[in-house]
Amino acid sequence: MTNRLHVLAIGNAIVDVIARAEDTFLADQGLVKGAMRLIDEAEATRLYGLMGPGREVSGGSAANSIAGLAALGAKVGFIGRVRDDQLGGVFAHDIRALGVEYTTEPATDGPATARCLVLVTPDGQRTMNTFLGASTQLSSADIDAAQVARADVLYIEGYLWDAPAAKQAIVDAIRIAHRHGNRVAFTLSDPFCVDRHRAEFLDLVRGHVDVLFANEVELKSLYQTEDFDQALDQLACVCDIAAVTRSEHGVVVLTPEERHIVAAEPGVTVVDTTGAGDLFASGFLHGLTAHRPLAECGRIGCIAAAEAISHIGARPEADLKALVAARLG
Amino acid sequence: MTNRLHVLAIGNAIVDVIARAEDTFLADQGLVKGAMRLIDEAEATRLYGLMGPGREVSGGSAANSIAGLAALGAKVGFIGRVRDDQLGGVFAHDIRALGVEYTTEPATDGPATARCLVLVTPDGQRTMNTFLGASTQLSSADIDAAQVARADVLYIEGYLWDAPAAKQAIVDAIRIAHRHGNRVAFTLSDPFCVDRHRAEFLDLVRGHVDVLFANEVELKSLYQTEDFDQALDQLACVCDIAAVTRSEHGVVVLTPEERHIVAAEPGVTVVDTTGAGDLFASGFLHGLTAHRPLAECGRIGCIAAAEAISHIGARPEADLKALVAARLG
Repeated sequence: MTNRLHVLAIGNAIVDVIARAEDTFLADQGLVKGAMRLIDEAEATRLYGLMGPGREVSGGSAANSIAGLAALGAKVGFIGRVRDDQLGGVFAHDIRALGVEYTTEPATDGPATARCLVLVTPDGQRTMNTFLGASTQLSSADIDAAQVARADVLYIEGYLWDAPAAKQAIVDAIRIAHRHGNRVAFTLSDPFCVDRHRAEFLDLVRGHVDVLFANEVELKSLYQTEDFDQALDQLACVCDIAAVTRSEHGVVVLTPEERHIVAAEPGVTVVDTTGAGDLFASGFLHGLTAHRPLAECGRIGCIAAAEAISHIGARPEADLKALVAARLG
Repeated sequence: MTNRLHVLAIGNAIVDVIARAEDTFLADQGLVKGAMRLIDEAEATRLYGLMGPGREVSGGSAANSIAGLAALGAKVGFIGRVRDDQLGGVFAHDIRALGVEYTTEPATDGPATARCLVLVTPDGQRTMNTFLGASTQLSSADIDAAQVARADVLYIEGYLWDAPAAKQAIVDAIRIAHRHGNRVAFTLSDPFCVDRHRAEFLDLVRGHVDVLFANEVELKSLYQTEDFDQALDQLACVCDIAAVTRSEHGVVVLTPEERHIVAAEPGVTVVDTTGAGDLFASGFLHGLTAHRPLAECGRIGCIAAAEAISHIGARPEADLKALVAARLG
């Protein structure tokens, strides 16, 4: 079937505004380094006024993963809402220019296209301040059942739970995916996001998710424990496949039967960690939909993540496909 | 006088949309590599639709020079028109975030904020496609005579001649600057721009400009000669100070009495030549307003230009002030 998709993602459609910032700026503004916080339009305007000059690049966690998958040569689609404003035009252009199926209609009223004010400190850490804007307008009407049916994997970002109207859309989409024998993948997104939606995320992971992405902090937050191994054991009981990233310590890939430790790529200079997790998911899902062994999926994820952190911005700049081919040997 | 400005620039207020492109793309679109062409909104939309994913960064030739001067620690101002749209907000934010005096009111109707679709080929050359949009709305009403009077140098880009309504504004500004004993600096901007406005540029250079910036191709175009030395001789007769850039061959700085050859910075990897000339002007004017010898002004210009071409985008990313201090020794 020529019109099958490897992955279809649902996520917030966001344009990143990336600027360098000193640690003192984060401290003065009371920002928690490395975390994502939600802000309203007034705070977005206030903080933007204090930030240095920026560069605008299409972002959004699941959208970044889809961009990475497209760069790896996968057939992919994206569902997420912008407004019919200039930044909405930028988001739609950039994702379509990658060959991604993107047909969500822009909103003609309501809040502006979502923006994420990303502050990159000298250590390469990114601190994110997100105004969800038009992203929160996503509804069940935006889910094309036929498109969901065509995708081997439906990929959903946890951040969507911060846009409550989208939840029903996601529940519908998961049902359609499973009805057609497709897999559902989910990322916990952010430790504070897990805090806000723990009960629902636990329910999802237990009953509706086939492939889970998390980092160490998010997983510990999910199970409210400081004991990483204990959290892994709990996860192994409920999840078909999980990939838990640990920054420079690599990745743990686990199933109820297997556990693989995959090392991070060596020799990477960290410029900006924005998109590391997103691009890990790109690589992992690319391997998975190509029926590669799980440890190799983890490897491809680590290679893609290493590319993302070697430059400013979350989306790949190098030829990811060639990079993975060269590194895997 | 604490509120003196070193440099006040008048220029087109443009947001760059930068994307990588192959040489075959330029050929297919009939684009002349390295040149700037003017396009209307329909062509901007068409070409954007064919381009790869981009990054949006504030640009504009004179505005880039002002950004460079601000990064070097100079007190600077900018005059140029945007629309009250999202990209206009981006332009205004970015230039103010650098500490630049920027008080031009955004247009509330008419065309959108100017965009320059910049295609960067693998050799680092940039090919520019500019929709001037709201920039062309600049008029005499936007010139604050008191601000012009406060600036040691009034810096004007040749590209402004493509926005005819702006011409009277510039003539007014030049008169005010000279009446207050300030210098007027001018850049020829682009060989095709020189072709379009040769008679007026010759008149300006002869009678109204104290400091001229040009590159070799622009200067040859101005005097319609293939003989570089002859063009230099003609220029030396009419211009107080001129700096003629020759890419990797460095710069010729000349006055009616002196001629200095300044070498380009060694060991620079060219990633994207966008902004090389703009940042040369930053460095040169910084030296000039600090009363440094002309050869040293040329040196500072070369150091700033080398920084600009070592990364994607025209505005400085490194600490220019520290860089110049280190290189000058």
